[in-house]
Amino acid sequence: MVETIEINECFARDGLQHEEVFVPTSTKISLLNGFARAGFHRIEATSYSHPRRVPSFVDASDLLGELPRHPGVFYKATCPNPKAVERAVADYHAGYGAEEISLLNSASESHSVKNLRASKSEQWDKISAMVCMARGKFRLVGVVSVAFGCPFEGRIDPGVVADDVQKFRELGADIITIGDTTGLAEPRAVRALFSRLDAEHPGFPFVAHFHNTRGVGLANAVAAYETGCTRFDTAMGGVGGHPAQIEYGAGQTGNVATEDTANLFESMGISTGLDLDHVMRLSAACERALGRELYSQVARAGLTGSTLRKKESV
Amino acid sequence: MVETIEINECFARDGLQHEEVFVPTSTKISLLNGFARAGFHRIEATSYSHPRRVPSFVDASDLLGELPRHPGVFYKATCPNPKAVERAVADYHAGYGAEEISLLNSASESHSVKNLRASKSEQWDKISAMVCMARGKFRLVGVVSVAFGCPFEGRIDPGVVADDVQKFRELGADIITIGDTTGLAEPRAVRALFSRLDAEHPGFPFVAHFHNTRGVGLANAVAAYETGCTRFDTAMGGVGGHPAQIEYGAGQTGNVATEDTANLFESMGISTGLDLDHVMRLSAACERALGRELYSQVARAGLTGSTLRKKESV
Repeated sequence: MVETIEINECFARDGLQHEEVFVPTSTKISLLNGFARAGFHRIEATSYSHPRRVPSFVDASDLLGELPRHPGVFYKATCPNPKAVERAVADYHAGYGAEEISLLNSASESHSVKNLRASKSEQWDKISAMVCMARGKFRLVGVVSVAFGCPFEGRIDPGVVADDVQKFRELGADIITIGDTTGLAEPRAVRALFSRLDAEHPGFPFVAHFHNTRGVGLANAVAAYETGCTRFDTAMGGVGGHPAQIEYGAGQTGNVATEDTANLFESMGISTGLDLDHVMRLSAACERALGRELYSQVARAGLTGSTLRKKESV
Repeated sequence: MVETIEINECFARDGLQHEEVFVPTSTKISLLNGFARAGFHRIEATSYSHPRRVPSFVDASDLLGELPRHPGVFYKATCPNPKAVERAVADYHAGYGAEEISLLNSASESHSVKNLRASKSEQWDKISAMVCMARGKFRLVGVVSVAFGCPFEGRIDPGVVADDVQKFRELGADIITIGDTTGLAEPRAVRALFSRLDAEHPGFPFVAHFHNTRGVGLANAVAAYETGCTRFDTAMGGVGGHPAQIEYGAGQTGNVATEDTANLFESMGISTGLDLDHVMRLSAACERALGRELYSQVARAGLTGSTLRKKESV
């Protein structure tokens, strides 16, 4: 039996969200198109955040309007509030909507207030309205942020995450992402939570979204995989530091790097469905787009497989 | 039952081996003394490499002569060849020998030739002579380098590593370190090799020495722990890039960072026996000693436990 995982490439949204440099729309499109060609089937494309709050995504509709589509490839747009879904629906009716949108809540009250400007209960009311507007037009992804710990409140009761997941299920989410937004998870907590969620929702597609803030991202990915989770959010170059991290002195590192995740799973004999050489070229293109070296270790060291296939010719 | 691991702190030897800046002997002594006070019981202190080959350790005997000792703390000196053991024995007779020396061979012929300037078989002959000279004076550590893959030869047959381990056992090694010298291991290979070694040598103290070249170091450490290995080599700040890595474009990152390893295991509820706040202060001291930011993510982000214990006061 071939073992496989699916990587959702987050560079263009979670990755760019807090970058100070605006990456030109044409560059984003070229990268997003490259991601599809390299074999990604889920790709974060943009966010309908308010452009004054997140200037990186001022071009959301322009980008989606110009982005070439590929059969079986789901481009995702993040929708933090009902206004965002209104814009997503308008783009849908104009013929170039995203294939997937994500709706967010936080496991902790404080993170919800600081990140979404709404209490959890207010955000659930908004999400209900957003689902009504979006249903039938997009695949719906529910995201539970700070699921393994909150930079403001500390430890999170896994029961709270289980309740949030249940709420997203009742609202009709097609996929649910469990976010370790500031890198506080560890492999035992990962196993415990993903086992519980799988027991409560057998076969439902959960996505593990780990940040590598404290270097544990890949260890957590392996733990999630061993617990049956086969879907991962990662970002090329490991970009995507969260504002709460930077504000609270918690490092700049963001998502687990796509290059490193794909390299690890392939080296374990688990197929990612990706063309790794193409991924490495896109890794370099992402560094050019941001004008600096990013955080992927494999971008510097090269693929494990390329080295292991070597034979000394001496 | 309390779960525990033991970390061997490698900053002052494997970490400094390829640094261009010479860290003054007094600074090294202050750090090494700090490591002992923070709770490390095994600490790499220096190497008797030829000073022309590795100028970082020109002060090996001076350092050992001045280094304060602590009951139960084993300071280690690396001995790549018989001349090195001669120097170690001379220091022993002068009253300030290391408590532990390490003897090296490589799983691959090419790495042995390039790193030790001897074929494997020549190096085994040297090691036999070295053991004769050293026996009864030092705790003896056998090190098998490039055990999970060689930058020159690619894949390594685990049977070769098992034979090398057997050889070290016959020669009387007290501890054996399995080195992933250029970061080519992955969790399944780690489990397979450590299971095999434990089956062939039940209860024998093996040490896992992972480099984080491709970001997989902590995932490998968790895999080794889950296979029963409780001893790890790590270096403060993740320094210690291997020359073969740099030469062959395989990145600069070295050993898995001590800060990140200790933070991970403690966050999993596994005791390291270390004072983590002291470790964090030593981490800063190591960065000052080298005059730059190093590679520990926890050095930037802070300890998981400190964040998880937070309670929103709002």
